[in-house]
Amino acid sequence: MLNSLAALLLFLLLLLSGLQAAEGVWPLPQRVSSSAEPVPLNPQDFSFDYARHSAAQQGCSVLDSAFNRYFALIFPEYTSANAALSSSEATTFRLEVSVTRDDCESYPAADSSEGYRLSVSEGKASLNAETVWGALRGLETFSQLVYEDEFGKFFLNKTEIEDFPRFQYRGMLLDTSRHYLPVQALLKTLDAMAYSKLNVFHWHIVDDPSFPYQCSTFPDLSNKGAFHPMTHIYTQLDVSRVISHARLRGIRVLPEFDSPGHTRSWGRGRSDLLTPCYSGAIPSGTFGPVNPASPSTFHFMARLYKEVSSVFPDSYIHLGGDEVDFTCWKSNPDVRAFMKKMGFGRDFTKLESFYMESIVNITAALNKTPIVWQDVFDYHERVSTPQQMMPVDSLSVVEVWKEGCYLCEVRRVTKAGLRVILASPWYLDQPGPTHDWARYYTVRPLDFKGTEEQKKLVIGGEVCMWGEYVDATNLSPRLWPRASAAAERLWSDEKLTSSVERAAPRLQEFRCKLLRRGIQAEPLYIGHCRHEYQGV
Amino acid sequence: MLNSLAALLLFLLLLLSGLQAAEGVWPLPQRVSSSAEPVPLNPQDFSFDYARHSAAQQGCSVLDSAFNRYFALIFPEYTSANAALSSSEATTFRLEVSVTRDDCESYPAADSSEGYRLSVSEGKASLNAETVWGALRGLETFSQLVYEDEFGKFFLNKTEIEDFPRFQYRGMLLDTSRHYLPVQALLKTLDAMAYSKLNVFHWHIVDDPSFPYQCSTFPDLSNKGAFHPMTHIYTQLDVSRVISHARLRGIRVLPEFDSPGHTRSWGRGRSDLLTPCYSGAIPSGTFGPVNPASPSTFHFMARLYKEVSSVFPDSYIHLGGDEVDFTCWKSNPDVRAFMKKMGFGRDFTKLESFYMESIVNITAALNKTPIVWQDVFDYHERVSTPQQMMPVDSLSVVEVWKEGCYLCEVRRVTKAGLRVILASPWYLDQPGPTHDWARYYTVRPLDFKGTEEQKKLVIGGEVCMWGEYVDATNLSPRLWPRASAAAERLWSDEKLTSSVERAAPRLQEFRCKLLRRGIQAEPLYIGHCRHEYQGV
Repeated sequence: MLNSLAALLLFLLLLLSGLQAAEGVWPLPQRVSSSAEPVPLNPQDFSFDYARHSAAQQGCSVLDSAFNRYFALIFPEYTSANAALSSSEATTFRLEVSVTRDDCESYPAADSSEGYRLSVSEGKASLNAETVWGALRGLETFSQLVYEDEFGKFFLNKTEIEDFPRFQYRGMLLDTSRHYLPVQALLKTLDAMAYSKLNVFHWHIVDDPSFPYQCSTFPDLSNKGAFHPMTHIYTQLDVSRVISHARLRGIRVLPEFDSPGHTRSWGRGRSDLLTPCYSGAIPSGTFGPVNPASPSTFHFMARLYKEVSSVFPDSYIHLGGDEVDFTCWKSNPDVRAFMKKMGFGRDFTKLESFYMESIVNITAALNKTPIVWQDVFDYHERVSTPQQMMPVDSLSVVEVWKEGCYLCEVRRVTKAGLRVILASPWYLDQPGPTHDWARYYTVRPLDFKGTEEQKKLVIGGEVCMWGEYVDATNLSPRLWPRASAAAERLWSDEKLTSSVERAAPRLQEFRCKLLRRGIQAEPLYIGHCRHEYQGV
Repeated sequence: MLNSLAALLLFLLLLLSGLQAAEGVWPLPQRVSSSAEPVPLNPQDFSFDYARHSAAQQGCSVLDSAFNRYFALIFPEYTSANAALSSSEATTFRLEVSVTRDDCESYPAADSSEGYRLSVSEGKASLNAETVWGALRGLETFSQLVYEDEFGKFFLNKTEIEDFPRFQYRGMLLDTSRHYLPVQALLKTLDAMAYSKLNVFHWHIVDDPSFPYQCSTFPDLSNKGAFHPMTHIYTQLDVSRVISHARLRGIRVLPEFDSPGHTRSWGRGRSDLLTPCYSGAIPSGTFGPVNPASPSTFHFMARLYKEVSSVFPDSYIHLGGDEVDFTCWKSNPDVRAFMKKMGFGRDFTKLESFYMESIVNITAALNKTPIVWQDVFDYHERVSTPQQMMPVDSLSVVEVWKEGCYLCEVRRVTKAGLRVILASPWYLDQPGPTHDWARYYTVRPLDFKGTEEQKKLVIGGEVCMWGEYVDATNLSPRLWPRASAAAERLWSDEKLTSSVERAAPRLQEFRCKLLRRGIQAEPLYIGHCRHEYQGV
């Protein structure tokens, strides 16, 4: 029996859960004001609509599909069939979406605006953004505002949100060479990235152990370099599915074809590519990094990168350049002769710089902006003698990945006028207790001595999930929700999100939302979610 | 074109893969001799049969269902419908199973024989065991002998195996209190346990955070003590499903209702059970361990354990007894008065011993053999003064769990004539790199100074998966294949399995088998399996 005391308690409870719901958006929006007043939502009486003045209208692929997706995410018990039915004129709650640019069929880009304004009032919400990508971020936020009471009724609170990302680049690296990740696992990870507003899938697609990219120009690369030429590859269709799935979620796909090191698997399908190592005067039968002394190398690379540049629409490309072991180069007489010819003396960092410079030029000619691992910057820095043979400014974006004083490196790179992506503090592949999420959360990417200009050069960061110990069996629980901790650091205002204590219950709640959406996200500590992952 | 060289190569390849297949049984059987000669298997011409002289015949629940299960495991592409069809008289390969005892409707017990003999020849295999439980182990071994070539054809090698477990008790602890594990996750774990020949599911079912066991006698325990009274409980039906699923796989279910500590959740549904803590002269409002000073405690425990004893058929029961904090007992005037009355002085270990003694007596009267954590032995050891008020020999089985010199403890416990289950080196709940499996593999449970009699008292060991950071999202990859490393240690001959290097490729292969069977087992290192987990 609902007497007045019980009604009061219920009201207080709603107030409380309402407040929780408003605070429950992860990553935290830049500006939120919300009342404790719950607005009811009825899945049978709810619709997403394009505002009349919106530049995008029905038929906009990005938003049409997002409306379907988010309907199912907001009302998990209802099918999308119901969703279609509900789009009648008489709906009692409408979310009107408006964008100022019709970029529906484009790809998200490095400089795409992701800001949005969201206003929820009685029976109506409006979402305004410059781009469809901003609208996607706003839809995610809207979906997280909705909560369900004990009786299965849906509510959200009157809320005003103005939001935009702190950093433009919020990435996640997956390594599909050390273990093959089935396309389904990639797509599912893209879904979860969108829930945390991550916006770059850095696809470390090939490396020493295997070459799963099915290259049209050089089919032998995967025929001979993949773990299996039929089952452990990414066909052109697979790649385009991944890119399209990512696009619809506002996620860029950044391909990395790492060289000259980390290329052992390339050599299996391309016999003249790698440097033959020598044992004294005779070849030892083993191979080292890509051979920078052979003109055929650059001919091959030009054709490979031409294909890659056309398959991957993003205007950035990751060229790798990390961890090059000079031992094999040193042993090879052709390489030594080339060093001499080029006047490099015995400084192999000059050879590495020369090689990377050539690759940078190849990709620049293809209108791509190159990203390299910090090693390349470090070598360039060393070889930038007064004569400036290889100027640092041929580089554009440097990814800082090494441990130790990574902010010292960020400072040096930005001082050289280059942009930085920070990865060092976000290596998630090493298993660690889930409760170490605070380690990823408390990173301060701009906490170095530098000018305002330097700070602006830090374009973002990314979590790295290397594949030595990771495949589809443990990828999701190892990524989530720890990657979400990094995601809030990269999106939200640092001042508003400096407390681990305040973040903990919010992250716990967000993790339950991930479970509800079928993402196998680990628990942070003892406790439960209303809808547990079923483990099957 | 298959020229003679290619044919020779194929033959050599088959030889090689045949050898791998024979060595590929995990855990390694006690005695194997196998030829390199492959015998073909055709799923449409294969049947499991009861030998004429077998004590069990068609209608034997354990073996009938095992035949269905293993057909699907051996031939993953074929449905069980095909299996039924294939049981014709004209089959070209028959596995004849024979047991000497008709224990088809019983439960596996602590002293059940699990030995078996398996003989594979052309067109026929025979499996002989004393019990159906031994036959189950033999079926698992048989299923692991079968391998598939590149063209989808099945083979196994002529093989003779004589096998039996080194230790009788090979357990796995799951904690369903710190996180609730859905029944599906428990059943799936039981499946995987059987693949590694583990035979005891130690169900740490309740603890401080929640009481998910729906108790018929005291329904408030889960109504008020579970995370949620409807969705986060194990009903009587759930429990009997788990027990039945385990039985069909030769796995005992050992329930643990841990007290007097670790009982916070019990107090929510049973207000007079826990000790009220005092702050000076007044109750502080918090509660400590079960109140040993109140007669109602033992009345309650007697009724609870009576129900538990009838619900769980195993003749053993785990009584817990670990990590009792005396602070609250010390603060409570009633407890102090009781101490005085009992002549315990100020030694609270005597109170703990008294409490455990009482619980042991309760369960002994119910014909159950009690298992306790080592803390209880340690207390008893301390209080066993010349007058022998609480003799150690009221105890039966002690589970050693603490870090440090755990073999010292094993030595002390066995010296006192008690049986030991070793858990210390097999705590798998703390996340660690998968490649640390060797740590679990290289344990030497009998490597302590002691008599032959003492060694015999070590009845086995178990892997423990505590629930602080583990639920259904990460249970499987954290368990497998690391738990399999421990499983081989507990089943196989130590001399034959002393090399980590030789075990590594076998474990890698076994892990691929687990994937093929749908178990989300982590990778050990870079590489691939023919059938990857799809991550969905």
